[in-house]
Amino acid sequence: MIKVGIIGATGYAGGELVRILLGHKDVEIKWYGSRSYIDQKYARVYKNMFELVDDKCMDDNMEALADLVDVIFTATPQGYLASLLTESILKRTKVIDLSADYRIKDVDIYEKWYSIEHKSPQFIEEAVYGLCEINRGRITEKTRLIANPGCYTTCSILTAYPLVKEGLIDPDTLIIDAKSGTSGAGRGAKVDNLYCEVNENMKAYGVASHRHTPEIEEQLGYAAGRELTVTFTPHLAPMNRGILATEYASLVKKADGAYPTKEEIRGVYEQYYKNEKFVRVLEEGICPETKWVEGSNYVDINFVIDERNGRIIMMGALDNIVKGAAGQAVQNMNLLFGLKESEGLELVPMFP
Amino acid sequence: MIKVGIIGATGYAGGELVRILLGHKDVEIKWYGSRSYIDQKYARVYKNMFELVDDKCMDDNMEALADLVDVIFTATPQGYLASLLTESILKRTKVIDLSADYRIKDVDIYEKWYSIEHKSPQFIEEAVYGLCEINRGRITEKTRLIANPGCYTTCSILTAYPLVKEGLIDPDTLIIDAKSGTSGAGRGAKVDNLYCEVNENMKAYGVASHRHTPEIEEQLGYAAGRELTVTFTPHLAPMNRGILATEYASLVKKADGAYPTKEEIRGVYEQYYKNEKFVRVLEEGICPETKWVEGSNYVDINFVIDERNGRIIMMGALDNIVKGAAGQAVQNMNLLFGLKESEGLELVPMFP
Amino acid sequence: MIKVGIIGATGYAGGELVRILLGHKDVEIKWYGSRSYIDQKYARVYKNMFELVDDKCMDDNMEALADLVDVIFTATPQGYLASLLTESILKRTKVIDLSADYRIKDVDIYEKWYSIEHKSPQFIEEAVYGLCEINRGRITEKTRLIANPGCYTTCSILTAYPLVKEGLIDPDTLIIDAKSGTSGAGRGAKVDNLYCEVNENMKAYGVASHRHTPEIEEQLGYAAGRELTVTFTPHLAPMNRGILATEYASLVKKADGAYPTKEEIRGVYEQYYKNEKFVRVLEEGICPETKWVEGSNYVDINFVIDERNGRIIMMGALDNIVKGAAGQAVQNMNLLFGLKESEGLELVPMFP
Amino acid sequence: MIKVGIIGATGYAGGELVRILLGHKDVEIKWYGSRSYIDQKYARVYKNMFELVDDKCMDDNMEALADLVDVIFTATPQGYLASLLTESILKRTKVIDLSADYRIKDVDIYEKWYSIEHKSPQFIEEAVYGLCEINRGRITEKTRLIANPGCYTTCSILTAYPLVKEGLIDPDTLIIDAKSGTSGAGRGAKVDNLYCEVNENMKAYGVASHRHTPEIEEQLGYAAGRELTVTFTPHLAPMNRGILATEYASLVKKADGAYPTKEEIRGVYEQYYKNEKFVRVLEEGICPETKWVEGSNYVDINFVIDERNGRIIMMGALDNIVKGAAGQAVQNMNLLFGLKESEGLELVPMFP
Repeated sequence: MIKVGIIGATGYAGGELVRILLGHKDVEIKWYGSRSYIDQKYARVYKNMFELVDDKCMDDNMEALADLVDVIFTATPQGYLASLLTESILKRTKVIDLSADYRIKDVDIYEKWYSIEHKSPQFIEEAVYGLCEINRGRITEKTRLIANPGCYTTCSILTAYPLVKEGLIDPDTLIIDAKSGTSGAGRGAKVDNLYCEVNENMKAYGVASHRHTPEIEEQLGYAAGRELTVTFTPHLAPMNRGILATEYASLVKKADGAYPTKEEIRGVYEQYYKNEKFVRVLEEGICPETKWVEGSNYVDINFVIDERNGRIIMMGALDNIVKGAAGQAVQNMNLLFGLKESEGLELVPMFP
Repeated sequence: MIKVGIIGATGYAGGELVRILLGHKDVEIKWYGSRSYIDQKYARVYKNMFELVDDKCMDDNMEALADLVDVIFTATPQGYLASLLTESILKRTKVIDLSADYRIKDVDIYEKWYSIEHKSPQFIEEAVYGLCEINRGRITEKTRLIANPGCYTTCSILTAYPLVKEGLIDPDTLIIDAKSGTSGAGRGAKVDNLYCEVNENMKAYGVASHRHTPEIEEQLGYAAGRELTVTFTPHLAPMNRGILATEYASLVKKADGAYPTKEEIRGVYEQYYKNEKFVRVLEEGICPETKWVEGSNYVDINFVIDERNGRIIMMGALDNIVKGAAGQAVQNMNLLFGLKESEGLELVPMFP
Repeated sequence: MIKVGIIGATGYAGGELVRILLGHKDVEIKWYGSRSYIDQKYARVYKNMFELVDDKCMDDNMEALADLVDVIFTATPQGYLASLLTESILKRTKVIDLSADYRIKDVDIYEKWYSIEHKSPQFIEEAVYGLCEINRGRITEKTRLIANPGCYTTCSILTAYPLVKEGLIDPDTLIIDAKSGTSGAGRGAKVDNLYCEVNENMKAYGVASHRHTPEIEEQLGYAAGRELTVTFTPHLAPMNRGILATEYASLVKKADGAYPTKEEIRGVYEQYYKNEKFVRVLEEGICPETKWVEGSNYVDINFVIDERNGRIIMMGALDNIVKGAAGQAVQNMNLLFGLKESEGLELVPMFP
Repeated sequence: MIKVGIIGATGYAGGELVRILLGHKDVEIKWYGSRSYIDQKYARVYKNMFELVDDKCMDDNMEALADLVDVIFTATPQGYLASLLTESILKRTKVIDLSADYRIKDVDIYEKWYSIEHKSPQFIEEAVYGLCEINRGRITEKTRLIANPGCYTTCSILTAYPLVKEGLIDPDTLIIDAKSGTSGAGRGAKVDNLYCEVNENMKAYGVASHRHTPEIEEQLGYAAGRELTVTFTPHLAPMNRGILATEYASLVKKADGAYPTKEEIRGVYEQYYKNEKFVRVLEEGICPETKWVEGSNYVDINFVIDERNGRIIMMGALDNIVKGAAGQAVQNMNLLFGLKESEGLELVPMFP
């Protein structure tokens, strides 16, 4: 059994880690870390866990944990892990970080977008960006530190990646309009996240300034083979879970002056994702809906070409706290320990 | 592998049967019956099943199914199974009926409340009312026909059962005020169930006339050892899943003239449910919430005594299409085939 | 123009007062009090008021207000007004209090249920309980202090009042099962009121202990002509606005041993409410729904008799922050100043 | 009093017309047309209207109506009015059409996008596109036929109009990503619009093919002074009301090679909308939210410049059945009859 510790176990992503790991046959959770609820029973915080989890919440002691467990999941605020991580810890245990601390290779960009000084930039180079479908080859039993991708970024990148990589769209024209359920805003007690403020409401936020922007740009930049700048607009939607990314780009004409056909586009998506269990390229005419992936680790993707102006509309949907957080973290864990990648993740989406 | 056929596979309960059975290691679904979608791919109707179910929807052929499968689940309108069931079918296969056709032993009561003529009353006696926690002993490998309890009834009965059985409450004072999510109203295209009619709205319906009333009365009557009449008021709540039953009754004074204490009440609940995996008697002070059982087969129960007037308020919460329909049906199936009762039902509630 | 000050203008009830008073032709709001947002523009807190309200939020200065305005609305926490109110203030201005401070005549009961010491019990006797339909005669231009009723209480009392008053139901059997939208929980930043905690969820709370209980008991006690004890169970529903109260009681047999008929019951309701603009007794067979009164000052009421056990199910629906708070407060204000009672309250319910 | 007839009074836009017109001091509704509910009381269909509307629903008799009323509102399916309208009718009454029949000047484009033969193209030229803020000068007491704009179009056009008109953005780069509440899908009994299908879900639909596209293109084409092609993607959001349009375009460099500054952009918006009662240009940093305009006739607009790539993100929010349908129709009616443009439309947005 893989011994697991979770720091930040009482946030929504932490709670989802617990839900998934309870159904993972090779895992034993040894530590439910939560500074806010120390010594309180975990099942009093998340009452769905009554009779399923008997443990109390523990303080966040990375050093103690490093001796106790095989892997630590950190579902913590930005900067938290960076301020605590040491070589000594990494020598003793693996770390899968659900925060942004090691996602961005250029520490200046991190510090600018997050307005935080990075306290342990020496680990950035080593950290593997854990977008399994793209970086699978680099996530091995030797890997010590995973930077688990963000929710918006996972959705945004996977939706556009094959077309950027194959040069079918002009990356400079890429616009991402994303709609997220409210669990993405976290479990903090803020007026903005109250039921009556979110319900029956749609709004954009973080326009042209959201922190997931440079993460998307870096990863799609690798695909494009050059730096690129995207316009990314997140929106808050009145639902618990789910992200829908609607992405716009201009198609690149082929040598013969024609735009790529929808069959060619579809062929590229299938080439990249046919063997990917967790990416479902939908049939023509079916638009992704967040409800169809709820509770599962799937990303559903499809596209429509706007023939009249040579633009493509790409759409991707995932569950922001599964594939967008905890599910992907477990997928990474499976790779780190040489398990079947989908172990514990055979979650059938729940409808309605 | 147990071969399973589902008739009514494209209703919400049918869809949930598919979700649960896909995760059941001993089951293979052989037949997705749906008269409305014959020859259409099941995964086009329930798009969450894309790449998980490849089958097409079939017509509802009970005779053909009886030869093909070990058990048929019927998630069909009232009267449908009763009009088709034959001895020949039951000789070849088991049937778990999610409709009300065989739940009520007195055919006159059935016909009065459902305004339907019962076409095969000869099977009523044989049918076992599949409320596993109460009738487990009668659900064996020899049982051929299960009348799977209704959603409101499962919740209402389990919440009050120990106190009725032990004579701690006066059954003539029992009032059940139940609130249900909208999946309970089915997938029919009716104006009343449109998003804009249900959203931001609460209402009672079927007041003093809902069909689940006689089913509750019959089962609690067995517990009380005499006939009884309850007041049952269902309400429609703006949420997908979940039933919360708030039940009121007068406590019966003990021989010494005192009301039973909360410790005594709790003791009785624990005596009945301590070993029941799917019934969770919550800790004192915690009221059941539908969200904490969503997607799972649990019923969460608790109570408060209104000291000032000798009344008890009992509360029960379940997921209406899991423990209230498909989950309980699978629980029954497990018993019918001698499997572990919780096989395939170790579903951790999803939050948020 | 009546000059109005609002203390607690940035809570949900305060915001609704502003919405309603902006449409009141005889009123001018002079003071938007909010300790939390002092010196911030009111329209930055409630952005619906952009270009409609230009004022900034002010501190809560009752003394200054008393000189400035004709009436002060206090939409403040329990105990707040009681700690500030003086004879000097009441000599200079009228006060309509949306808190519970002066609703309960017996100060011991207030202090017990609210766990607060009452700081100005000398004004309790003078305060008029502002349930206009019942106490209209006592709300005159001479009245200085109105105790505006609670949201649950307005709904619960009006729904049962005629039948209690006429002795048609046994008040000792009265059970009130109420479901409220989340605005009733206020605008405080609490985890329990976050979108993801409330959405897709139903729960009871304050079972057998909610503070509105003694207020209901006192008022219905006046109707019954004796003390009574009700069982009151509030529930939180996933919607912004609305309260639905489902009330249960045993009918009292008439001299001839028969229960009152539904025609007799209906006759009594019409006798009491036929001329009440804001109480709508629905046609037979129509259950009240919160959505049909949303945004308006109406209470919709109806009933069903459970013939089988001599019980009646009464149902009432209102908008908790209109008739249950701000609307009723304005109705009181109209009476206090001799205006038409419905002035500014001709709000057509909004659907959907 | 202006005598008004409504055809399609039981759809959501028709119901909103009734809600608004009941509060309009110069209007009397003489005819509640609804083929689906002939002879049924209107207040049985829309129970919010109980005791407010006493009329029954009538058949749709344009000829009879033309004699009876001063203006007919048609909130009917596409093609319906076009099939019935005659010169004789227009000689006797004014018509405000909430369908698309006369919105598009080029009948071929109409027929192509709507797949309907236009039965009365002779009235297209005469019809005035009733986007009051732009076409106010052409909506006079002599106007006989108003083509009331669509919900998405009103929002999309007003949000971008000043910048297109002033040449500050390149119209060929315009992308509109719009999110609508579910009332926009109408009151038809369709599975896709059931509560459980819409709730907790986000999806795009009609991608690159939605019928509001040519309407947007035509109107913005007038502003640009040339034909243009936009990419328009509507989305369905789990809420009753509201449209949020997020619009993307590349800024056009000025003669000096610099992009227009945010001050310049803001200046243009204010120039166009400063005197427009129903268009609110929000303060810098405030993104429009649908909730802040709910129930009102406002459009809230703002923008953010993405400095890094010379793109602008424009955002607009309105209530789709008020400013996006019934409210704008009444605004047009006011202009047609020489009333104050905002008469009956001083609706304060409702929050929460």
